[in-house]
Amino acid sequence: MPDYSIGVDMGGTNLRIAAMSTDGQLLEKITLGVKIAMGRDYVIGEMCDAIHRLTAQYGGTGRFLGAGIGVPGIIDLETGMMKKSANLPGWSDYPVRDEIERRLGAKVFLDNDANMAGLGEKWFGAGRDVDNMAMLTLGTGIGGAIILGGKLFYGMSGMAGEFGHVTVEPNGVLCGCGNRGCAERYASATAIVRMAQEAIDSGEAPELSKAASSDPEFSAKSIYNLAIQGDAAAQRIFERFGEVLGILLADLVNVLDLEMFVIGGGVVSAWDAFAPKMFAELRERSLVYAASAPEDPMAKKKGASAQIANYARKKTIITQALLGSDAGLYGAARIPVSQ
Amino acid sequence: MPDYSIGVDMGGTNLRIAAMSTDGQLLEKITLGVKIAMGRDYVIGEMCDAIHRLTAQYGGTGRFLGAGIGVPGIIDLETGMMKKSANLPGWSDYPVRDEIERRLGAKVFLDNDANMAGLGEKWFGAGRDVDNMAMLTLGTGIGGAIILGGKLFYGMSGMAGEFGHVTVEPNGVLCGCGNRGCAERYASATAIVRMAQEAIDSGEAPELSKAASSDPEFSAKSIYNLAIQGDAAAQRIFERFGEVLGILLADLVNVLDLEMFVIGGGVVSAWDAFAPKMFAELRERSLVYAASAPEDPMAKKKGASAQIANYARKKTIITQALLGSDAGLYGAARIPVSQ
Repeated sequence: MPDYSIGVDMGGTNLRIAAMSTDGQLLEKITLGVKIAMGRDYVIGEMCDAIHRLTAQYGGTGRFLGAGIGVPGIIDLETGMMKKSANLPGWSDYPVRDEIERRLGAKVFLDNDANMAGLGEKWFGAGRDVDNMAMLTLGTGIGGAIILGGKLFYGMSGMAGEFGHVTVEPNGVLCGCGNRGCAERYASATAIVRMAQEAIDSGEAPELSKAASSDPEFSAKSIYNLAIQGDAAAQRIFERFGEVLGILLADLVNVLDLEMFVIGGGVVSAWDAFAPKMFAELRERSLVYAASAPEDPMAKKKGASAQIANYARKKTIITQALLGSDAGLYGAARIPVSQ
Repeated sequence: MPDYSIGVDMGGTNLRIAAMSTDGQLLEKITLGVKIAMGRDYVIGEMCDAIHRLTAQYGGTGRFLGAGIGVPGIIDLETGMMKKSANLPGWSDYPVRDEIERRLGAKVFLDNDANMAGLGEKWFGAGRDVDNMAMLTLGTGIGGAIILGGKLFYGMSGMAGEFGHVTVEPNGVLCGCGNRGCAERYASATAIVRMAQEAIDSGEAPELSKAASSDPEFSAKSIYNLAIQGDAAAQRIFERFGEVLGILLADLVNVLDLEMFVIGGGVVSAWDAFAPKMFAELRERSLVYAASAPEDPMAKKKGASAQIANYARKKTIITQALLGSDAGLYGAARIPVSQ
């Protein structure tokens, strides 16, 4: 039997733990109704208990290579501690990784959920056949991961891949990071709701206004539903979303020239509403993307693009994630094997 | 005696050839008044003659490891051929690298001048003490190079580092690449002259207007001279230049989180006119830069920045290039050794 590792996804709703063999087979997945809100010691206790159950179960089949734990927040990779985060009171300045390593007697990797999702898609999802890719996780913000040669690229401080804070509108909406016009202010679930509220306030979105006042769970999903039913105001929101995502992707393709960009996160289910505009912007704005897609009739029209159209042999692939909410869990299980 | 390599810089004004030992000592530099405009066969002939003179001279001291040749244009790394370029008629669809390899009987590396300059600054200039850096060469456009682990990062098609075409103004000035609002439309020598012309046309730049009509060599340098003499219109141009460069750098720091960003190229001599605005934008716009510079009083003022201020231990360094116009030559000599 092959060796195996453990992946943990500390989501806001559930705590999920999976055992996975080194050849990528899911052995068992445990989903606990434990929320991060239950507090640090409780969550760590339940997590370690579940991991012990799995290692007892599969310990006879091969070596236990360690555990990867995906958490929502910024990690100090050197110390394995979490940084201060509004969502995780009590976790900062606590040796999370070392404490779990001590309890498990095995190597533990702590990383943020966006990186784990990127690693999951690379090894088991959309990126299986490429070694160099980036992943954008569209959720309340935009999470980012860069994978080079099959491994996460961290940068100097572990902060590489902050795609959500690339400037797409220099005088745009203020962001919590201090910048104006960050991509995630226009291309995230939070942004969809904000843009809907602005449309409602303008008095020019009667259907959105009706939905917002009648639906107690008015959300990005409700706005998407209106868009696919043909409401112009809702459609404009997803077009703006796609436009900004296209600008962001054009920047990333021009800077990184990676084989693949995988788009995941909850909002990716609105793909049909935002993707056409996203691709239109990308073709218009990225000479590297245009060069990589010589079959694209849009690229042929432009002088500069035509000059370099035969330059690149491979096409930059922009595609949807395949693993949904499991990406981070699978990536966490992979990290002890691949990193 | 140590082994050695040859670097060649095919500039518009001169053809320069250097022999360098593997320990980084310049053995000899030859500058020929040969211009690229003299045509492919003539340039290649003169280049190979000069290389033969150097290998005859230093062949007794150590092994000849090969030659690196920096050229202005886009290279197909696999075939070692140049792509079509307006500035180099007759060079495309010709096996440049293979032909020179054949004549020299040694390994030849062909790469674009921006990559060579980045490699030069990494090994012998501003980046000597870092392994991960990017270089921005501000000239007629913006050239870019990404260096990871001491080696050039090429991306899928050799086009990684197209920093000049990052969008900084989504509805901005049209670029030859097909995009609007590319960084190099605002932060290059060409852009300085264009912005000056716009200021003159607006009728609100009397000094610029006077200089443009009296100086037959009116250029970015003339505009800089007016700026340092206190002309407000000229100063505004460099402030806009710095603002855009700050937006671009903020994007790059957020995406790549590299240790160092080196700014070179002819326009870098106007550093005092654009750098203050550049740093102001960078601090305001990049959470990664702000996190990396906890001693910065600006970072302390912001909630989000304060949260992560103790996260990064090292400071992102943004600095001027040190090698001037020799960067590409030294980088070309290094490439047979390091790549």
